Amino acid sequence: MAPRMSWPSLATAASYLPILSWGRRYDRATLVSDLVAAMIVTIMLIPQSLAYASLAGLPPEVGLYASIAPLLLYAVFGTSRVLAVGPVAVVSLMTATAIGDHAVAGSPEYWTVAITLAFLSGAMLLLMGVLRLGFLASFLSHPVISGFITASALLIAAGQLKVILGVKVEGHSFFELVWGLVQQGQRIHLTTAVLGLATVAFLFWARRSLKPLLLKLGLGARLADVLAKAGPVAGIAVTAWLTWFFHWHEAGVRIVGTVPQGFPPLSLPSFDLALWQELAVPALLISVVGFVESVSVGQTLAAKRRQRIEPDRELVALGASNLGAAFTGGFPVTGGFARSVVNFDAGAQTPAAGVFTAGGILLAALFLTPALYFVPQATLAATIVVAVLSLVDLDILRRTWAYAKSDFAAVVVTLLVTLGVGVESGLVAGVLVSLALFLFKTSRPHIAEVGLVAGTEHFRNVLRHRVHVNPALLSLRVDESLYFANARALEDRINEAVALRPDLKQVILQCSAINDIDASALESLEAIDQRLRDAGIVLHLSEVKGPVMDRLQTTAFLAHLRGQVFLTHFQAIAQLAPQWLAGVVKPTADQHLPEAR
Amino acid sequence: MAPRMSWPSLATAASYLPILSWGRRYDRATLVSDLVAAMIVTIMLIPQSLAYASLAGLPPEVGLYASIAPLLLYAVFGTSRVLAVGPVAVVSLMTATAIGDHAVAGSPEYWTVAITLAFLSGAMLLLMGVLRLGFLASFLSHPVISGFITASALLIAAGQLKVILGVKVEGHSFFELVWGLVQQGQRIHLTTAVLGLATVAFLFWARRSLKPLLLKLGLGARLADVLAKAGPVAGIAVTAWLTWFFHWHEAGVRIVGTVPQGFPPLSLPSFDLALWQELAVPALLISVVGFVESVSVGQTLAAKRRQRIEPDRELVALGASNLGAAFTGGFPVTGGFARSVVNFDAGAQTPAAGVFTAGGILLAALFLTPALYFVPQATLAATIVVAVLSLVDLDILRRTWAYAKSDFAAVVVTLLVTLGVGVESGLVAGVLVSLALFLFKTSRPHIAEVGLVAGTEHFRNVLRHRVHVNPALLSLRVDESLYFANARALEDRINEAVALRPDLKQVILQCSAINDIDASALESLEAIDQRLRDAGIVLHLSEVKGPVMDRLQTTAFLAHLRGQVFLTHFQAIAQLAPQWLAGVVKPTADQHLPEAR
Repeated sequence: MAPRMSWPSLATAASYLPILSWGRRYDRATLVSDLVAAMIVTIMLIPQSLAYASLAGLPPEVGLYASIAPLLLYAVFGTSRVLAVGPVAVVSLMTATAIGDHAVAGSPEYWTVAITLAFLSGAMLLLMGVLRLGFLASFLSHPVISGFITASALLIAAGQLKVILGVKVEGHSFFELVWGLVQQGQRIHLTTAVLGLATVAFLFWARRSLKPLLLKLGLGARLADVLAKAGPVAGIAVTAWLTWFFHWHEAGVRIVGTVPQGFPPLSLPSFDLALWQELAVPALLISVVGFVESVSVGQTLAAKRRQRIEPDRELVALGASNLGAAFTGGFPVTGGFARSVVNFDAGAQTPAAGVFTAGGILLAALFLTPALYFVPQATLAATIVVAVLSLVDLDILRRTWAYAKSDFAAVVVTLLVTLGVGVESGLVAGVLVSLALFLFKTSRPHIAEVGLVAGTEHFRNVLRHRVHVNPALLSLRVDESLYFANARALEDRINEAVALRPDLKQVILQCSAINDIDASALESLEAIDQRLRDAGIVLHLSEVKGPVMDRLQTTAFLAHLRGQVFLTHFQAIAQLAPQWLAGVVKPTADQHLPEAR
Repeated sequence: MAPRMSWPSLATAASYLPILSWGRRYDRATLVSDLVAAMIVTIMLIPQSLAYASLAGLPPEVGLYASIAPLLLYAVFGTSRVLAVGPVAVVSLMTATAIGDHAVAGSPEYWTVAITLAFLSGAMLLLMGVLRLGFLASFLSHPVISGFITASALLIAAGQLKVILGVKVEGHSFFELVWGLVQQGQRIHLTTAVLGLATVAFLFWARRSLKPLLLKLGLGARLADVLAKAGPVAGIAVTAWLTWFFHWHEAGVRIVGTVPQGFPPLSLPSFDLALWQELAVPALLISVVGFVESVSVGQTLAAKRRQRIEPDRELVALGASNLGAAFTGGFPVTGGFARSVVNFDAGAQTPAAGVFTAGGILLAALFLTPALYFVPQATLAATIVVAVLSLVDLDILRRTWAYAKSDFAAVVVTLLVTLGVGVESGLVAGVLVSLALFLFKTSRPHIAEVGLVAGTEHFRNVLRHRVHVNPALLSLRVDESLYFANARALEDRINEAVALRPDLKQVILQCSAINDIDASALESLEAIDQRLRDAGIVLHLSEVKGPVMDRLQTTAFLAHLRGQVFLTHFQAIAQLAPQWLAGVVKPTADQHLPEAR
């Protein structure tokens, strides 16, 4: 009977628009929590937004624009209660890289390309969400992501160092930047460098030691927290005041200058298809990286309160956020790690905190921008350097080296290609290398000859344990699903064993770790059975899993198989070699124990 | 203590030069067997060599040249006792496709490109053999190979049909060829068509019914066999005689014409690097297809006599054979299926049979070629059509559809792209699709919630069996190795379960089917453990395999894990929920049995 079509219920609608579920239960206590969290996040976001916009090669106010509409849209569509969406370091760098070939930083065309990139990225995320393609992001392995983020952070830090030191350096790769900085060592602009390095030092100090100090001075925990989070704001205010007071901007210290005041502009992406084609790959990479970063933050925070986020819905929410950025003069955004953690720690209960944060940023865009005139660019660069250096995780090299060489290889390739060639190449190289290594590993399955552990019904690897082996019987355990790339390896292994053992009469494959057998592997099994039969040897299977057995039963393989399929490996031995087994169970002098190798 | 360096022993040398092992035991009985087999194979090879050369767009004598030096070299280096190397249908088609863009068929440049292709292919095979890269061929799955060979055979048959019907048809894809034949229906050259179709009919009849007829007429089995194998030779002789007698060549029947007489020429490949670059991909594809075909034939035949072939040595032998072809005016060759089976069935004992076959073909090149003048091209085309139609296996579509949709998809893509676009695109598309589908499958692992089967210590899927489940305990069995592409799926699954079950206190992962855990999956496990801990739930593992446990012990994961690692899943339940277990073992009214879904 076909089920009746029904209208989507409110529950279904709520699963698409989470705001419907939390909005109905909103009360005063939640409001207070959300407002406090919003205030703290706003204080943190203002300098970050300005800095990341300049990292992306855009005017600082664009960073504010990109932190308003996206936050509102995420509050409507997002499944995380606490994720804070906006410009983040790595995506800003990827944006700068993607636009760099198409326009000059600072030009109106550059901004239009940024808007188009946000539009394309938003459309892709939305499409991936609707088509439930969130799993594609899993092909970015953790080692590749770690290597990529570490390399990006180093790349960003090296790029910002030239702003902090007040020198001009050409070059895009990390090595070019570092070499350029070394060469330009004598042309450092002293005032800028002192200002910039002092800001870096202050920000590092503020992050580690300001809150403990304030607590020691007797401030309340919450106030101390807010003031400590305001460290970057203080840095901006103090350096701007110093610059104004000492007229450093007339002595060559580059400042932010005039920042327009007002609402975010309504904007449209370019509809130049040739541009779309060229931006397609960067937009896809930005989408995937943004999605992966956002989802892992969201999942970590949701789990702490036994909540859950839905990756495919998150794609829709991030897509909407980026489309929002595209139509309000912004650039690609995603859920940021630091700001989301701050939001969570500050007690945000619902996405309404994001709405209030957007309100705070809007107030900044409306009223605060004239105060930004004297902010030195070196201060913004210092903010970025301190933020990104916390992303550097070179220990991943040691950890993956100790754990698995294939993961280490993926990290090294991603790291080196990102540093040496660029973010897009690094990401693509990392994905390809990790896929190739995975395929390589599965194409060489671990196949162990097993023997009976005396006194038990267990079978273990003859190379690792002292076990009983019957020379007329070969027991092989295959530790991998059988598919086209490793089917031949099994054939080779059995061919080898048969050629080496003239007495062999039976081969039993223990299939407990075989989760799937594809058509190629089935043909290999048929070929193995046929070859063994030609050589007068019988092939048996044991411990075949339910789903694999279901599938084998649709074929003629089991009907043609001369041997049997045993429920357990011990049953197989008990039936095929009862006399030998009796001898082993009651050990005699002639038992066959292979030497440990 | 470092082992002393020693000179390679004769055994080592024999493993590189198999001729050293079989050559020393050669006796009179073996000689007779090999000579008889060589005679039968020679009779079969002469028409095939001529036909495949013309399929490759080359003069017919080139087919003979390609069947001399390669056979000799394979006899020296090959590990199969019976493989017969020479031009084969699919590789000849791939050769024609690869050269088609660079030279006009029949021109001297065309031949030089063919020689260069054999040289590059030989060099690649040799290199792959030395680097032991034979496993790369496994990435051609059986469905892709089946689809590719079937499509190639159809493409060859359609191309030869125009020769048989005596019409001119432009176009490369199967659909263009078929459409062209339909359009040219009225321009068929009648004499050619009657001659060609009659030859096709005769060859089909000879293959099926000639031997039984000869046996019925009282001939000895061996003689009947030889005469039946000579069917194509008879077809060539009779049609050539008819053409000469009735002067059909003056009535528009196209004939082979003058074929030079003599030893194979010494030839050199082109050393034009630009040409090498363009031929690199076709040469690689030809190498891989040739290797796969050759090895699967060789393995099948070797196993029948409990012998063994070594894939990496086979690469070296095929490489040497192709280099031999390149320096003696030949074109790419490989081990052929039909001729090797005939060699085996005729009783060939050692590669010396190949040497004698090469001698037979050389005699043909020296003395037989003038007799080929009047052979109609339609007869050669008929030989090809009859040979390739036996390669068509459209039943693979039904079989893979019934067995696994992913394999079916790989066949369909390979088949359609090969027919519609060409051999190279078809092969590449097939490999990419099958890899993508494999990655897709492993990225969505089967994760079953398991429960206790009453009265046993076994745990089975709750959706398939009536089992006991404790609501405070979640038992999950993951049926896949954990790696980056599926690590997130496990996280999602556990997040979902935790969000749905407010009473959950413990999660146990049954790891019996997990053959590997990579660094991404390890981080996922750490994240899962952390999130579960934040939610007040303890994570345990059970039935972790030895190699996986070894690796986990190099990390801090096990030290941080709040839960335990149990040897068996039953032990885990016995320790974590002894009271519940006691209730289940002695069933009471309140036992929890989930409904079968």
